[in-house]
Amino acid sequence: MALLVQKFGGTSVGTVERIEAVADKVIGYKDAGHDMVVVVSAMSGETNRLVALAKQIDPQARGRELDVLLTTGEQVTIALLAMAFEKRGYTARSYTGGQVKITTDSAHNKARIKSIDHAKISDDLRQGRIVVVAGFQGVDEQDNITTLGRGGSDTTGVALAAALKADECQIFTDVDGVYTTDPRVEPQARRLDVITFEEMLEMASLGSKVLQIRAVEFAQKYKVPLRVLSSFEEGEGTLITTEYGADKAMEQALISGIAFNRDEAQLTINGVSDTPGVAYQILGPISDANIEVDMILQNVSADGNTDFTFTVHRNDFDMALASLQQTAERLKAREVRGNNKIVKISIVGVGMRSHAGIASRMFEILSNEGINILMIATSEIKISVVVDEKYLELGVRALHDGFDLKTAS
Amino acid sequence: MALLVQKFGGTSVGTVERIEAVADKVIGYKDAGHDMVVVVSAMSGETNRLVALAKQIDPQARGRELDVLLTTGEQVTIALLAMAFEKRGYTARSYTGGQVKITTDSAHNKARIKSIDHAKISDDLRQGRIVVVAGFQGVDEQDNITTLGRGGSDTTGVALAAALKADECQIFTDVDGVYTTDPRVEPQARRLDVITFEEMLEMASLGSKVLQIRAVEFAQKYKVPLRVLSSFEEGEGTLITTEYGADKAMEQALISGIAFNRDEAQLTINGVSDTPGVAYQILGPISDANIEVDMILQNVSADGNTDFTFTVHRNDFDMALASLQQTAERLKAREVRGNNKIVKISIVGVGMRSHAGIASRMFEILSNEGINILMIATSEIKISVVVDEKYLELGVRALHDGFDLKTAS
Repeated sequence: MALLVQKFGGTSVGTVERIEAVADKVIGYKDAGHDMVVVVSAMSGETNRLVALAKQIDPQARGRELDVLLTTGEQVTIALLAMAFEKRGYTARSYTGGQVKITTDSAHNKARIKSIDHAKISDDLRQGRIVVVAGFQGVDEQDNITTLGRGGSDTTGVALAAALKADECQIFTDVDGVYTTDPRVEPQARRLDVITFEEMLEMASLGSKVLQIRAVEFAQKYKVPLRVLSSFEEGEGTLITTEYGADKAMEQALISGIAFNRDEAQLTINGVSDTPGVAYQILGPISDANIEVDMILQNVSADGNTDFTFTVHRNDFDMALASLQQTAERLKAREVRGNNKIVKISIVGVGMRSHAGIASRMFEILSNEGINILMIATSEIKISVVVDEKYLELGVRALHDGFDLKTAS
Repeated sequence: MALLVQKFGGTSVGTVERIEAVADKVIGYKDAGHDMVVVVSAMSGETNRLVALAKQIDPQARGRELDVLLTTGEQVTIALLAMAFEKRGYTARSYTGGQVKITTDSAHNKARIKSIDHAKISDDLRQGRIVVVAGFQGVDEQDNITTLGRGGSDTTGVALAAALKADECQIFTDVDGVYTTDPRVEPQARRLDVITFEEMLEMASLGSKVLQIRAVEFAQKYKVPLRVLSSFEEGEGTLITTEYGADKAMEQALISGIAFNRDEAQLTINGVSDTPGVAYQILGPISDANIEVDMILQNVSADGNTDFTFTVHRNDFDMALASLQQTAERLKAREVRGNNKIVKISIVGVGMRSHAGIASRMFEILSNEGINILMIATSEIKISVVVDEKYLELGVRALHDGFDLKTAS
């Protein structure tokens, strides 16, 4: 018998029928003897409907009152799900964030959880009740309603699991787990049974949008075992954990997955005088324009001048290019170049820590396919390359095959 | 400068445009120097939408979780209205019932207010904020969300006005006040400037559905001056108060209004032995069937037997008739008769306390029109008659005219 926190997103509770299916699924676990806490999002479409109402009144709607409005979305779902449990003969109790209570800071629309008082929930569980909690929401210390921002329901699930010392936090989504890469690009992509938090963070930030980064970080910090699984299909999903078990370590693959990001753009400023502070002079104006920079590369050229290259989201390309051209004039740079037809491909795996030669193996695989590498960046458990966007599928498949991800476990 | 509590119902906040119109109206009072607290209902249609969702899961949905669901309706409105104030450059703050907080008993779906903590609201008013409160809702002492049942938003408004010692509680509806009778029946019906709580209660319970009885009783108990006025038109509306002022008393009409109820049915049991307890033997089974009885009349007949007549809502007629027929067999009564084509017409006015002859004047007016009276009931400030339904319009108009309601003030 375990204590499980299960989180179901908007698609999983998008209709009354789906809410009833969630009730049946949870009851399966309850009947197996587990204590159940269920976290739900707003029914899909509901948040957009509410935002549209707000924008009719104020296109810039945000802050305290937007949170009062949006939190009604999850409140509808918790009531309906609790009714579905009661209708099936189970006792259930629903809680808004404020009722739990989940205390956050006062940063409306993007609040952070400060503490959770789980006394009521623990008491309900002792009495055999199924507990249903509204995701995405809390209250600040003055009892103002707050929301946690995008992906906040995942965070609610993980934070509750941490507070309750749950055995597992299970995130039900529309995919059945974390894959070695996007199956739409590589049909032979394989579901991973286990992945580490570190790997998951690298996969998530690189575009495998299964879980919100914040929830993964939170789970890692509080050592909450996290499992991603499908709302609609049976299966074990993927367990995200601190480290591979001893049995897994033996057969552990060098690489866990291939992540990629299509929406990249690359900018280069050539022939800048290589003096201290030049990086700040170049990136300062970019950052002031609220453009997030991803990879950064600086080469020293022979003549004492330097070339400076960085990547941004493709949506920010035009603005970044304009900014860089102004900087180039000021710094008397030789030229500015931009390329918004690039993509980033990364291999991720804690295995590369203990194995040399992963990078060169990666470059060899790409070279064998005639793929030219435009930029390289490395971290402890990931190696990323920038290539022309036309090579995305070819590169991902070649790496997936070259690192034996189809068969490894 | 006054402290005003204004309540706007579902029709008045039925669309974003109407919510903005409410904001403009309230700002008019605010700019005139008043402290403003606004109570709102769910947007019209929203409560029905939520109930329909609940019924898909459980046709019998009620209790705790239904309250969690339904209270989202008002929460949406308070957020949108507060946004509309802020958009117009005013500071505003919205509160759910639980945030205020409005503490109720634990009778879900029909809770009663026990206390109101108005500290936050008073503080907001001191700081010049417009306060927006969700009607119809509260929390019990364990912080479970409750609703006040039908017409609960009016009650919230009156209770807040009482707690804040507001100068007036103003209920905005889709009519511009309380009328001498229903203008659809008597086009010359006239809006009353003032009416007493007692009269209003008799008018309301008799079918002039402007205000919920509960709210009027609450206002009377706490001596909160109550005003009914239109959301959509300018005007002073009708003030409901403890007593007419000295200036009003002089010119006070005998009768304030003519109320009526179309949906009545009459049942008679003839020739029952006139023994103690016979009334209970007849009405006990009716009450056990959850049928509410309105007027009751018992005549002694010459032979020591009695005739017993009562009225019920027309929807309950068939059930009441079946019950009465069983009782008649048991009591060996002579016969049972029923008539579901009757209506009740009442004249209401505190003036009749100090004037004799009102009843005979009423009967004379009806007699002049050839209207046969089937039943009579009187109270201190009201006289009701039951007549054939075909006489409803004729009777109301004749009484309205006969008691000079077109011109009196």
